[in-house]
Amino acid sequence: MTIQHEIYAQPTVISELLEHGLVQAYQLAAKIRKHDIRYVYAAGRGTSEHASIYGQYLFGTLNRLPVALAAPSLFTIYQQPPNLRHALVIGVSQSGQSPDILAVIDEAQRQGALTLAITNDPASPLAQHAALHFDIAAGPELAVAATKTYTAQLTAFALLAIALADDQARLTELRRLPVALTEALQLEEVVATAASHFRTMSYCVVLGRGFQLATALEWSLKLKEMAYVVAERYSTAEFQHGPIALIEPGFPVLAVATRDAGSMYIANLLDRLRAAGAELLVLSDDRTLFAHGVTGLLIPAGIPDWLTPIVTIVPAQLFCYHLALARGVDPLHPRGLRKITRTH
Amino acid sequence: MTIQHEIYAQPTVISELLEHGLVQAYQLAAKIRKHDIRYVYAAGRGTSEHASIYGQYLFGTLNRLPVALAAPSLFTIYQQPPNLRHALVIGVSQSGQSPDILAVIDEAQRQGALTLAITNDPASPLAQHAALHFDIAAGPELAVAATKTYTAQLTAFALLAIALADDQARLTELRRLPVALTEALQLEEVVATAASHFRTMSYCVVLGRGFQLATALEWSLKLKEMAYVVAERYSTAEFQHGPIALIEPGFPVLAVATRDAGSMYIANLLDRLRAAGAELLVLSDDRTLFAHGVTGLLIPAGIPDWLTPIVTIVPAQLFCYHLALARGVDPLHPRGLRKITRTH
Repeated sequence: MTIQHEIYAQPTVISELLEHGLVQAYQLAAKIRKHDIRYVYAAGRGTSEHASIYGQYLFGTLNRLPVALAAPSLFTIYQQPPNLRHALVIGVSQSGQSPDILAVIDEAQRQGALTLAITNDPASPLAQHAALHFDIAAGPELAVAATKTYTAQLTAFALLAIALADDQARLTELRRLPVALTEALQLEEVVATAASHFRTMSYCVVLGRGFQLATALEWSLKLKEMAYVVAERYSTAEFQHGPIALIEPGFPVLAVATRDAGSMYIANLLDRLRAAGAELLVLSDDRTLFAHGVTGLLIPAGIPDWLTPIVTIVPAQLFCYHLALARGVDPLHPRGLRKITRTH
Repeated sequence: MTIQHEIYAQPTVISELLEHGLVQAYQLAAKIRKHDIRYVYAAGRGTSEHASIYGQYLFGTLNRLPVALAAPSLFTIYQQPPNLRHALVIGVSQSGQSPDILAVIDEAQRQGALTLAITNDPASPLAQHAALHFDIAAGPELAVAATKTYTAQLTAFALLAIALADDQARLTELRRLPVALTEALQLEEVVATAASHFRTMSYCVVLGRGFQLATALEWSLKLKEMAYVVAERYSTAEFQHGPIALIEPGFPVLAVATRDAGSMYIANLLDRLRAAGAELLVLSDDRTLFAHGVTGLLIPAGIPDWLTPIVTIVPAQLFCYHLALARGVDPLHPRGLRKITRTH
C-alpha cells in the first residue's frame, strides 16, 4: 500500500537529503548572511505549517532568530500586507502550488525582501518565484496524507539552521537520523497494538511542547486525515489555560513527552491527567515519563531534544495508519481531499 | 449568575474603555513611535493569545506591522530566547501573573527591546515589569471563563492600532461599539434556541478567517471551558488542507462568516460543508451567507470587518452559556481550572 511504502521510505529519503541537502543549506546560508535579517516570516498550510513551527524553535535556539507565522489573508483577502523589509520570508509547500502561499512570496519579492521556497518540486510556481529554493527532493508522494515530505521538510529546516550557525556538533548528531528512523519503524508491532486499544475513539487530545509541539500538531492532522478522529491539539502549556476542563474519566489523551529541560512540567501535567481519569498514551524516549501513561510508545533513547520531532512522528504515522485499518477506513484516500489543495 | 452578569457588562466596560483607553493609547503610541520598531512579538495564553491574534490582523492592516506570536518555552525551558531588538514586545494577560509570559517580558527588557503589558491589573508583575502598560480596567472578573476582559483586550488592541496610525475614520467607527454590543445581547432568545439545537453534541469544528479567526478560536475555547464540548478550531483556509476529511453527515460545524472581501471563498466552503451533510450553524451579519446554514445567528449589519470580532463573540459567549445550562453543566466553575493559571 502506497502510504505504508512512503512511511517506510523515510530512512532512505532522509539519508539522501543529508547528502544533497547539506550542500544546498550551506550555499543558501552564504546568501542569507549577506542580508540584514532580523526575523523570519514563514508561510505554510497544514503539514507545511507544522514544519514551519519546528523551524520556529530551531531558528530560535540555534540562530536566535524570531519566527512569525504568516497570516496569508492579509495578502489575499485584505490586500494590506505587512512591511517585510528585514525579514527572511520562507514559503513552505510540498507541491509549491497553493495561491495564498505564493501571494506571500510574490509580495515579499515586490518589497525587496529575501525569499526562500522549501518545496518538493523545483518546477513549481513557488520554487520559481522565490529568490532562493531548497529542494527537499523526497520523490513523488502519492498518498494525500504527507509523511516522507514532512520529515524531509523538518530535515531541511534543521540543515538550514545548522548551516546558518555553522554548528558542526549538531551536524554530527543530525547524521544519526537514518539509523534512528529505521529503529522507530521497528516499533510497528507495538504501535499496531496501541492503535487497536484506541480503535473506537471518536475524539482525543494530542499534546506536545517546544520542539515537540510540531509533532503534536502533525499527529493530530494525520489522525483526522487518515482515521477521521476529532483530534484536538495543544501545547502542554496552552492546554492548561482552559481546554483541560474537557478531561473526564476515559478521555483519550496522546502525549508526546520526550526528555528535555521541561520534563518536570510535563510529568506534573501527566500526573494531573491520570488523576482526572484520562486514557493516557505517552510517546517518549524516557522510561520515567513513559511510565506515567496507561499505555505508551517507547522509542530508543539518545536522540537530542532538537531532533526528536523528526523521529517521533514516525510511530505516530504508523499509529494513524493502523488506527485507520482497525476502523475500516482507507488511509490512502481521505474523503473530501485531493493531494494539492489550493486556497486563496 | 456571575458569568451572565459579566457578559452583560460588556457594553458598559467597552464604553468606559473607549474613554480612558483612548488617552492611554495615544500616549503609548507617542512613546512607541520614538523607537525603530520593525515587528511585534506578542505573548499570551488562551483568551489572551486570541486577542493577540486579532492584533496580528489589526497591526497588519492598519500599521503594516508583522506580528510574531511568542514561543515562551524558548525563554523558559530551552533558555535560548530569540534576539528581540527592533521588536515591540507585548505581553497580554488578564491577571498579569503567568510566569512564562513574564519571562518573555523580562528577557525583552534585558535585551533593551521596548515592552508593553496589556493587563487588567496595574499592580500585577507583568504590568510592573514592562516599560509600558495598557490598563484595560474591566473591573474584577470572577468567572473562570473570560468574557468582558476578552472584548476589552480586543478593544485595547484596536485603540492602539488606531492611535499608531492616527486613523480618525476608524476611531469614529469604533465609537459605535457599545450600541452594537447592546444589540448583540438582544439576540439571547434566538441564541438559546440555537444552543438547544446542539445540546447533545460531544464535538464540533469552529471556523473563521482573517479578523474572525480570533472569534473562532475564542468560541472554541468557551465551548470547552463552559460546556465541555470537544471543539476543534481552524481558519477556513487551513481547514481545507486536511481536517475537512472529518466531515460526515450530521457533523456539527459552527462557522463565523461575517461579510468581508473573502465572502466568496467562505460561501464556497459553506456549500461544500452542506453538501457533505454538515450540521452547519452560521454566525453572520450578512443574510446571503447566513442562508447557507442549517441554522444560524444573524447579528445586525453595518459593522466594519475589522471590528466584527468584538461584536460577534457576544452571541458566541451566550451560546456557550446556554449550551452549558442545557447540558446541566455549571458554566461558572469549569472542572480542573482556577481563574489564574501559572505555566512555565
